[in-house]
Amino acid sequence: MTITANPTFNAAGNPVIDLLSRHRSIRKFTEQKIPAQLLSDLLHAGQCAATSSHVQAYTLIHVVDTAKRERLVELTGGQGYVASASDFFVFCADMKRPTEAAARAGAEIITGTTEQLLVASIDAAMMAQNLVVAAESEGLGICYIGGIRNDPAAVSDLLTLPDQVYPVFGLCLGYPDQDSQVKPRLPLSVIVKTDSYNSEQDNALIDGFDATMETYYSERLGGNKSSNWSKQLKPLFTSKLRLHLKEFLEKRGLGRQ
Amino acid sequence: MTITANPTFNAAGNPVIDLLSRHRSIRKFTEQKIPAQLLSDLLHAGQCAATSSHVQAYTLIHVVDTAKRERLVELTGGQGYVASASDFFVFCADMKRPTEAAARAGAEIITGTTEQLLVASIDAAMMAQNLVVAAESEGLGICYIGGIRNDPAAVSDLLTLPDQVYPVFGLCLGYPDQDSQVKPRLPLSVIVKTDSYNSEQDNALIDGFDATMETYYSERLGGNKSSNWSKQLKPLFTSKLRLHLKEFLEKRGLGRQ
Repeated sequence: MTITANPTFNAAGNPVIDLLSRHRSIRKFTEQKIPAQLLSDLLHAGQCAATSSHVQAYTLIHVVDTAKRERLVELTGGQGYVASASDFFVFCADMKRPTEAAARAGAEIITGTTEQLLVASIDAAMMAQNLVVAAESEGLGICYIGGIRNDPAAVSDLLTLPDQVYPVFGLCLGYPDQDSQVKPRLPLSVIVKTDSYNSEQDNALIDGFDATMETYYSERLGGNKSSNWSKQLKPLFTSKLRLHLKEFLEKRGLGRQ
Repeated sequence: MTITANPTFNAAGNPVIDLLSRHRSIRKFTEQKIPAQLLSDLLHAGQCAATSSHVQAYTLIHVVDTAKRERLVELTGGQGYVASASDFFVFCADMKRPTEAAARAGAEIITGTTEQLLVASIDAAMMAQNLVVAAESEGLGICYIGGIRNDPAAVSDLLTLPDQVYPVFGLCLGYPDQDSQVKPRLPLSVIVKTDSYNSEQDNALIDGFDATMETYYSERLGGNKSSNWSKQLKPLFTSKLRLHLKEFLEKRGLGRQ
């Protein structure tokens, strides 16, 4: 299996940077199971990520039950790899645990702030990304599942998530059975600005990136798909809006104030 | 400089997992500057992180101007390393760029959803964490700066951030001039649950972790500090509440609906 590194990338012989540059999502897995000790090591590696004020505001639900995995396939819009990957985790932002700990230590608890919602979501994301890097260093493939937010109430019922806990995303882990291409990224000068935000020069660069992605989609799908970056974003502002999220989170005691 | 790996950790000889297990925040840096080519490689490595629907909803402001760095020290509560680190970035969640791209491609734009706020914040966090792993693989030290949210309006004015863009956290990067200890993490069985959320057994484990952290703080500060995990969390629910965040974000067109 050959993996093409991102062509804009000059990893300069650093094997970690080289590993990072070869990331791509994997949606087809072999039947090989991840050994328990390795899985435990990956989870520990995830935990070593930075955490805001040491809060560690995340809980991972390791979904092992077959019926629950199948139900999660439905709830994430029919993504079969949620069931077929060796392992599937639902990453939850968890402000319940730190709230209760601080209360036991005598804090006057104020819950439901937007700050807490963001801290917990970001903590979960950093933990996940560390876990992903560790997994890929062992030859595993991964796929994040944002579709876990399609119906967060149903996911929460299925996994008996309490208030102040919400499912941020899912993560499939397993041994790759496909050779996906590395997807190009926006030019660095679009993403990184010096001293102030200035996007005046960006439109031409984004047009160029649209052309890059047009070629990528055309080659990947044998000329059957004509798209580009901007066109691909359109559904984000329509079908994937997830307009239920604000009300759902507030009901669960998150981001009310 | 010796770095102690997390003692609960069994990295089993994988150098990437070993690297991750040695993470600790660095708040004191030498005067050595990060070479431009290396910085560029690190930023590229950051970009290779997974991004929700390829949206890449982040902009990094590389703060080079000395006066702006000094102002950011004030705005983050007097954290001098924001100025003294070789490089400092403000990671912004950016829904402006994808919104405009989708609009050019003909989407009927709906902005200000909580989903978009979370997607952009998580995208920024994953990008940052990849960059951090790359940086640490080169012997650099890092420190995330959540204090960038102390006064997000002032930070936004300083960096001329437009609507639909907000400063999520800062990141100091440089060559370490201190040998911080690796901080313990909660037991894995508290963080990871199988098939459903169940915290019934957690209190005893958290008590044990409080004892671990009590020893850690006592040893680190020569017996001058008596604290533990739960006690350390108390300020999160008082002085660090950042109750301005909801109103600020809504004014900036984020998370209104």
